[in-house]
This record gives sequence, structure tokens and C-alpha cells, in this order.
Amino acid sequence: MNVTIDFGGTNIKIGLVEGGTVMAKTSLPAYSGNGLFPRLPVVVQAVHELLRQRGADLQDCQGIGVALPGIVDSDDRRLIATPGKYSDAIGIDFGEWIQEAFSLPCVMENDARAALLGEAAYGMAKGARNAVMVTFGTGIGTAAMMDGQVVRGAHYQAGILGGHLTTDIHGGVCICGNKGCLEAQSGAWALTARAAGLNGYTDSAWARKTGPLGYEDVIRAASEGEEWAGRLLDDLIGHWSAGIVNLIHAYDPEVVVLSGGLMKSADRLLPRMKERVLQSAWTPWGTPRFVVANDPDTSVLLGLSHLVKEKFALTCEMG
Amino acid sequence: MNVTIDFGGTNIKIGLVEGGTVMAKTSLPAYSGNGLFPRLPVVVQAVHELLRQRGADLQDCQGIGVALPGIVDSDDRRLIATPGKYSDAIGIDFGEWIQEAFSLPCVMENDARAALLGEAAYGMAKGARNAVMVTFGTGIGTAAMMDGQVVRGAHYQAGILGGHLTTDIHGGVCICGNKGCLEAQSGAWALTARAAGLNGYTDSAWARKTGPLGYEDVIRAASEGEEWAGRLLDDLIGHWSAGIVNLIHAYDPEVVVLSGGLMKSADRLLPRMKERVLQSAWTPWGTPRFVVANDPDTSVLLGLSHLVKEKFALTCEMG
Repeated sequence: MNVTIDFGGTNIKIGLVEGGTVMAKTSLPAYSGNGLFPRLPVVVQAVHELLRQRGADLQDCQGIGVALPGIVDSDDRRLIATPGKYSDAIGIDFGEWIQEAFSLPCVMENDARAALLGEAAYGMAKGARNAVMVTFGTGIGTAAMMDGQVVRGAHYQAGILGGHLTTDIHGGVCICGNKGCLEAQSGAWALTARAAGLNGYTDSAWARKTGPLGYEDVIRAASEGEEWAGRLLDDLIGHWSAGIVNLIHAYDPEVVVLSGGLMKSADRLLPRMKERVLQSAWTPWGTPRFVVANDPDTSVLLGLSHLVKEKFALTCEMG
Repeated sequence: MNVTIDFGGTNIKIGLVEGGTVMAKTSLPAYSGNGLFPRLPVVVQAVHELLRQRGADLQDCQGIGVALPGIVDSDDRRLIATPGKYSDAIGIDFGEWIQEAFSLPCVMENDARAALLGEAAYGMAKGARNAVMVTFGTGIGTAAMMDGQVVRGAHYQAGILGGHLTTDIHGGVCICGNKGCLEAQSGAWALTARAAGLNGYTDSAWARKTGPLGYEDVIRAASEGEEWAGRLLDDLIGHWSAGIVNLIHAYDPEVVVLSGGLMKSADRLLPRMKERVLQSAWTPWGTPRFVVANDPDTSVLLGLSHLVKEKFALTCEMG
């Protein structure tokens, strides 16, 4: 059994994983704007509580897997950079923290990469050796797998910055510093500002909604006949599709895994996105397969457990 | 010594390569719109003539390397797809043709990939294990190398479609079928149509020029104070820079190799492109190095020879 911890922007998800099954899980609010440090003691306590509930012990565990948003040095187990969230965690030695807190070895990975590993090992992309993943959340996380290996790159940046490929050179500035990124045009955090630029939005009831607009708001408003929302949704579908085409052109996958909150509306959106992507992508070999992850949270936890198994099974054999 | 043949869109370049040196080379007009078959006898003759001039013989050669634009199956030595040029060559067995024509084994590769291999083995990116290449010609060719291996992908598409990542979702339709590709916005073939949309162009002497606008025309017109050309050049620099940022975000390179006819104006363009790229790219690890290939034609020939050496040296050892 492995302990897996996914430090998400909104919630911290903790799971006990055995093979391809999450045996138990829990979730804590992240308060990620306040940083990571204040949450560490609470996380440690939650792990112990989860083990206790299962009648298990740390000694039953092979290792611990940790996922974070941002650029993660998976060899040195440090967070290199993150756009806004958990900024106090940059540079801290997660291996040391885990060792001190749990006396167990650990692996660390970017959350989208962990999710793709989970989907490829146990999920909707099982058996795929060439795949890309797009997670539509507050931001747009991506990952790529080529020839059975998750793509990491020389500085751990490759594959995970698909949300930061420019799709509209005339678009807004992104939190990453680039202009017109897929995420700046069509990530959930960009929706309120994008809607504000459309005729009819500021006069609508939606402009008086508490909190920022989410994907579901735009989809609902569009289905209620709000013109601004219909136009925004068309534009978003264009961007999401262009972003997927960019990933297909960059990494040459057989499978495209889609995930995140937006995929609650997959029935409505996926046919339109798929049509656009297949019209635009240049794939003379055939057609990439589209799949939707069953549960985005679980993908990350399974992927982390897979990494723990891969890394420490090898160590045992070598030891 | 190796024979190398680069079937370019405008010219077919043939070289005899020994180690990192092109010992002799020649060039023939390609007439690529008419297809490849009519040129094959002329190419065979030119190879024999070049060998004769060097006082060499086919028996002095280890193998033959062939480069083509488009998607190349380097294992099966066939052209899978090509945007317009040499369309009669799709599917033909190049290994068989070379064997029949020269009684030598052969390798085959996409031209931009061969160019990057040449630059990494012998040229401006020598020693780099993580690099991207952009060749600004009639189209925009790209290639990527990660961890010392040229990126090919499951269907030989990865790395070479950087010119077909969307940079302007509202842009024109590309020859590949996608919308707003870097190449459709800023490749040489797109310049005449782009200029035609700008105020002042149709009234200028440049609109009456014979043949399509080239990069050098736009640069010259801009430096002569033509307003349409100044605006177009600014826009092109924006696109080229966004395209390079997309490649940096996708493949995480240490070195960016720029090549092709446009780089004759590197003195004027490169500082502006570099500034834009470094402002926009998210690379917390540091700054990728920019280099310009000394001679685009030579890069391809050297890369092909490197591939021949790599492939058939191994066969000899194994045999």
C-alpha cells in the first residue's frame, strides 16, 4: 500500500492506494493562497487518521507520493516554480519532510503528469504508450507520454506547459508571463474577464453573481439563451480544440485523455471539440482516440502510487 | 564517406560527406511541383558525376542519406505525407530505390530533423542534448531533440510540426488544414496574402513585383519606410517569437537553433526576436541559448551523414 497526497489549488486530496485501487481517501481545504507550510501538520494528522480508519500502519506502506501544481523536480523532490499557489513551497526538500514526518521514502511529481501516469497505468488510457492529457480546472494542466515514458524534459518543464502554448497572439497576458496562452484565453480563472468584454454580460444577472464565473456558469447561461454566453462558449470550444491540436502536433499521441471539472459537461462539449480537433489536426496515420477520465482526483492518486511502486520496487530489487 | 541527398522544395542538394565535412556538393533545380519521379534519373547521374569529380566510387561509401520535407517514416523509409511538394513520392520504398540505383544501404529522414541532427553533431548546437530547431524557408520547418535523442513520436510526426502549432486562432487556414498555424501566419508562402490585407500595400510598387513576396522583400520595404511592411514585419516578429516560445514550452530545450533564408537578416531580427522570446517564455531554470546555423543546406547533409554513420556502424558491429 502507498500513501498519496495531491496538493491541489482548492483541496488537498489524500489517498491510500493498493495496486490500481484507492482503498481510502479524504480531502482537506487547501487555502493554497496562504502557502503550504500552515497545512503540513494538518496533512500529517489526516494521513495518520486515514491509516487508523483502515486499521493500517505506516509500516504497511511502501512509500509516499506527493503531487503539486507547477514545475516539479522529480529527482530532487522540490517544487521549482508555481504560478501563484503554494509559493512558500518553492525549493523545500520534500523528501526530507516526508522522511521526517513519516519515515518513508517518497516520490514527487507535477499533478498533471501524475494524472496521466494514473490513467495510463490503471485508467481510461490503460496500455497506451503515446498519450496526452488535458485537465480543465482553474488553470489548464497538461502532460504527455511518448513511447511509454512520461515526458519530463531537461528542466522538468516538457509536457506540462501545454496550457501555456499561445493560441491567440492577440490575447491577454497569462499568469506565466506569456501572451495569449490557451489558459489565459480559456482556463476557468480567465472566464470572468473574458465575459466582461462581451456585450450583454454586464447587464445580465450573471454579472452580479458572487465569486468568479466558472465553466458550469457559462455552459448554463449559454443553454438559457444568454447571447454573450453562447458566443463565449463557442470561443472557448475553439480554444480548447486548438490547444488539443497543438498537443497532437507536438507529441504525436494515439490517445487524448480529457479531465477536470469541465468534463462534467463532456456529453455536451466533447462531440463539438472532437469534431473541431479532427478537422484541424494533421494526422495522416489515422485518428487519435478521445477518452474522459472517470475521476480527476483518483487519476492523480493512482499515478503517484504507480510512481512509488516503479521507483521503490526497483530499489528493493537492486538492494 | 557518405552520399547525402536533400530533396528540398526549390533545389535538390547532393553532398559527399566525410565525418563533419561536406567534401563536395552540388545542387539541382527541384521542380518539386511536378513530383519526384521525373528527377530521380537526374539525381542518380548527379551523384555519379560528383563521385567522379572527387575521384571516388560508390564502393568508398558506407551508405546514402535522403531527406525530404513532410512526414517521413524513417524505419520503413517512406514518405507518409507532404504538404504539396513531391506528392508522387508518398508511399514509395526509398530503401529499394537506393538499393537498385546505388547498391548501398540508406537512411531517410525529415529535412528539419536531419538539420537539427547535423547542428547537434557537428554544428552550432554541438554537444547539446536538448535543443529545438526552426528553419524559416518557404514553410517553417522545426525539429526537437530531448535527452540526446531526436524526437520522432509514434507516427513520425513529433517535433517537426512546430510550424503547425496555432499561434493565432483567428488566422488564416494553413495548407495542413489547421487554422492560424505559425506557418500560415508567418511562413514565406503566406507573405503576399498577408501584405495584401494591409493598407498601402496594393498602391505600392511592391504589389507589382513579379512573383511572390519573400522575407527579404518585406525587410527591405520596411527599412525603406513602407508603412505596411513595417507593420507586417512587427507582426511577423511577434509570430516567430510566439512560435519559438511554444517550442520552448513544449520541449524544454537548452539551445534554440535558427536557420533558413530569413537568418541572412539575423543581425537585424535576432535581437528583437530574442528579447520577445525571453520576455514571454516561462523558464525558471535560466535562459535558452540562441544560435544561428552557418549554412542551412550543409546542416541537412551533415545530419544525414551522421544518421548513416549511426545506423550502419551499428550494423557492422552487430554483423
